[in-house]
Amino acid sequence: MASIFSRIIAGEIPCYKIAENERCFAFLDINPVSEGHTLIVPKREEDYIFDLDDEDYEAMWQFARKVAGALKRATGCVKVGVAVIGLEVRHAHIHLVPMNKEGDMDFGHKQTLAPERMEELARLIQAEL
Amino acid sequence: MASIFSRIIAGEIPCYKIAENERCFAFLDINPVSEGHTLIVPKREEDYIFDLDDEDYEAMWQFARKVAGALKRATGCVKVGVAVIGLEVRHAHIHLVPMNKEGDMDFGHKQTLAPERMEELARLIQAEL
Repeated sequence: MASIFSRIIAGEIPCYKIAENERCFAFLDINPVSEGHTLIVPKREEDYIFDLDDEDYEAMWQFARKVAGALKRATGCVKVGVAVIGLEVRHAHIHLVPMNKEGDMDFGHKQTLAPERMEELARLIQAEL
Repeated sequence: MASIFSRIIAGEIPCYKIAENERCFAFLDINPVSEGHTLIVPKREEDYIFDLDDEDYEAMWQFARKVAGALKRATGCVKVGVAVIGLEVRHAHIHLVPMNKEGDMDFGHKQTLAPERMEELARLIQAEL
């Protein structure tokens, strides 16, 4: 069965899309750790990030760097943090989390933002790409 | 002034070294989130991971993949998690954290292991490289 991320990429489940290229897809995490928290996903479904083939693995980190730049400009954060956990959804994904202080990447502290704010964040980030 | 990581790489401060190549250096985190928690650091000092030049950026993620493979084999963990936070030490570093369940990458839950156990872990990981 297709993962929830594959269904998002296919447009079967709505998302706040940020960007995509041939190999990768970026969209806002629906339960952000901080405003602008974005997920980077390979289009070819693979559970574990270190099992990606060389092309997808390199494409993911290049795409993550590009999106992180836009995220930093859009949010004005100090740095964009990176996390790959991957024990819940079995489709590799990179978390990009705007951070201003050490505790800002606390996955025990997820929030839900209003749809209007999520749309606005997506637009702001896209405008920086 | 050289960062604490540059001083570790230079051998001025002791560490439990895992491996190095031309561009990167890997050693055990002295306050591990889980046993085997390893840091990957670029030899050329740069604060923010996304500011690394293309060669160092790519080398870091390739080296991280190689070390993560050894970490997984050495610890028998389910997956190796990845984190880049970087608001404390201003020398870019990738955390590689052996994980068996979702909460295993909790940076609020650092531990101190006996030196003998740290040495043993370093040997076990090196043997898998």
